[in-house]
Amino acid sequence: MKKIAVLGYGVVGSGVVELFYKNKEKIEKNTGTELDVKYILDLREFPGDPYADKVVHDISVILNDPEVCYVAECMGGVNPAFQFVSSCLEAGKSVSTSNKQLVAEKGDVLLQIAKKNDCNFFFEASVGGAIPIIRPLHTCLAGNDISAAAGILNGTTNFILEKMFCDKMGFEEALKLAQELGYAEKDPSADVDGADACRKVCILASLIFGKHVYPESVYTKGIRDITLEDVELAESMGCAVKLIGSTKRLEDGRILSAVMPMAVPEDSLISHVDGVFNAVMVWGDGFDKTMFYGRGAGKLPTASAVLGDIIDCVKAEHTVTSHEWILSDNTDFIAGMESFCAPRMYRTAVSGADVYADAAKSAGIEVEKTAEGGCIVSCCNNKVSDSFVKALEALGVKVFAEIPVLAD
Amino acid sequence: MKKIAVLGYGVVGSGVVELFYKNKEKIEKNTGTELDVKYILDLREFPGDPYADKVVHDISVILNDPEVCYVAECMGGVNPAFQFVSSCLEAGKSVSTSNKQLVAEKGDVLLQIAKKNDCNFFFEASVGGAIPIIRPLHTCLAGNDISAAAGILNGTTNFILEKMFCDKMGFEEALKLAQELGYAEKDPSADVDGADACRKVCILASLIFGKHVYPESVYTKGIRDITLEDVELAESMGCAVKLIGSTKRLEDGRILSAVMPMAVPEDSLISHVDGVFNAVMVWGDGFDKTMFYGRGAGKLPTASAVLGDIIDCVKAEHTVTSHEWILSDNTDFIAGMESFCAPRMYRTAVSGADVYADAAKSAGIEVEKTAEGGCIVSCCNNKVSDSFVKALEALGVKVFAEIPVLAD
Repeated sequence: MKKIAVLGYGVVGSGVVELFYKNKEKIEKNTGTELDVKYILDLREFPGDPYADKVVHDISVILNDPEVCYVAECMGGVNPAFQFVSSCLEAGKSVSTSNKQLVAEKGDVLLQIAKKNDCNFFFEASVGGAIPIIRPLHTCLAGNDISAAAGILNGTTNFILEKMFCDKMGFEEALKLAQELGYAEKDPSADVDGADACRKVCILASLIFGKHVYPESVYTKGIRDITLEDVELAESMGCAVKLIGSTKRLEDGRILSAVMPMAVPEDSLISHVDGVFNAVMVWGDGFDKTMFYGRGAGKLPTASAVLGDIIDCVKAEHTVTSHEWILSDNTDFIAGMESFCAPRMYRTAVSGADVYADAAKSAGIEVEKTAEGGCIVSCCNNKVSDSFVKALEALGVKVFAEIPVLAD
Repeated sequence: MKKIAVLGYGVVGSGVVELFYKNKEKIEKNTGTELDVKYILDLREFPGDPYADKVVHDISVILNDPEVCYVAECMGGVNPAFQFVSSCLEAGKSVSTSNKQLVAEKGDVLLQIAKKNDCNFFFEASVGGAIPIIRPLHTCLAGNDISAAAGILNGTTNFILEKMFCDKMGFEEALKLAQELGYAEKDPSADVDGADACRKVCILASLIFGKHVYPESVYTKGIRDITLEDVELAESMGCAVKLIGSTKRLEDGRILSAVMPMAVPEDSLISHVDGVFNAVMVWGDGFDKTMFYGRGAGKLPTASAVLGDIIDCVKAEHTVTSHEWILSDNTDFIAGMESFCAPRMYRTAVSGADVYADAAKSAGIEVEKTAEGGCIVSCCNNKVSDSFVKALEALGVKVFAEIPVLAD
């Protein structure tokens, strides 16, 4: 019999305990090991809760109990999660976390500590909630050279953008609805301004490219400036506006990671991912492209991923060496937005197709599509995009918005 | 240094060798083990091929070489693949196969042999080609009670149906194009009549529910009878016709598995999976639903999955116990099509909405949608469907086709 400790008895932590007891028999059969939850660490008491007797307030009870082999960290935030997780790993206890901030900021350090102590630091739940993505990347797809990943990594903003797209709501109205339904926080900044998606991009980039990419290396722009007019223009050109987190290895070997609203053409499966769902498309040399889709948040979906990790911790007797990346002591391998290249959608004052064509010609690009009050031009960098905008304005056409297009 | 043998140097086998040497360094880093391909088993010689010196014609060379720890079986068919794979497993060599027929017909036996010899029989490539699906099912999602899976498991038929949908081709014309492009065989029966998808359903059902489901237990209907009129009617009601393989645990615990053309509503992501791509949606108690999408066939995509298995064989020192199912000595756990329940689309002679409503009322179901020459009714079993058809015909409305609707 091996024991599990759960750190934090909030939404995710209580989901882990609930799902574990619901499927205990299946999980024990899968791992070939008898398992039980021995402790739940939380500052609060939970009188009346069926697992109230497992609640402890002092991490040292868990650290000093040799029966506890596996720890599920569901507290969130960097402090004290980092101290608690470090201590657990140093005590040789494998940890699974749902805490994306912890992984994005301290993943490299925690992976090193896990390796030194021959245990595991797993974080399937930190990207895409329930979606199996971390493990497939370093197991099923490990025979490939993976070159890029991009997708919808935040359910709240995807819900808001869908309401704008389908129900013609403005941003503020859609945000208010998301808050009423409990999808957005009272202070919605972490979702709406892209910080949450940015952390997930850091984790994907670090795992795929093998070196820690920190949040400050990721260009991050949220959806606050997206208007109903932008969404409607995109729709008229066969696209949906989505908040896309992406990471890519450029031809020179450097890594370009970004979070920004993008117009996604309807022939990309990503454009059809609606509501609070998440999806990640991955590109590589053997498999070409593959997409993973599912619930990006929520009590039981997140618990599903944490439990999947715990199950893998039980089966892996030593550190899983493929599940790691190294510390970054410089940012030489990081490319900035001056290297960003994509087709672009522009929303403008009403104009004729010939005016777009003239401006594009002077900027050295092609117009791919036009609509009333907008156009899409071929792949270009920010400098060329600026010169296109200037050319348009010189021709008397005001430009209201520029949104990059996701090329599949 | 551990050695790999590849059985069969056709499309998939040569892809495995190509992708292995392309990414050898990455693979060795991932596994922490030096690896090389030592033998390629094939009846033919390959003069001029860069790996011609590795070609052998006698399986006993591989069986008797203790350096060979891992075997990639890419021959296809049950004979002699079954004998070769059995012998390899009995010699303690782990096997990865891309051969769905072998797994669907002999998976239970081969898994037992692998277990007895403390090695692994893996088959990620046998369902959905490059798509990570087998491993996520028994690792990432292992904390859940999985209740159903359904999806597009055959790229050839999906290509044909898309050509009918998008380019208004008839079935025969679309099939001819698929043959010209190399997506369909000269004898297209295994794809078009559903046998290929049926094998994949067997594998998914066996893994999810833990007991071998044989091909003869799966109701299988191909797309030969689907007409352009069916596809157009579906489109007019917001659906795409797809060949859907599915498996589901019913309330009484029995398993219902089937392959058949279904009308998939556009709010399901599956309806947007086009071309030769495959996708599998899975449902479970914790994660709710998750979808896996990618290339279902082809040289390097299939090789990607085989190599992912080989990499996992290297890391797993013993038999992976979660990756198994038991033999079935009876079919008591299998439900027949009399238990099948779904909404249905009917293509009929032109009729009024009131006539559909009258017929539905007498059959005890609801009309959910109508279009010119067709309707969709609420969930019902085959008996109720028959009585609806009879009621319609009694009202003078001829019924040309009935296609079940995939409920998400």
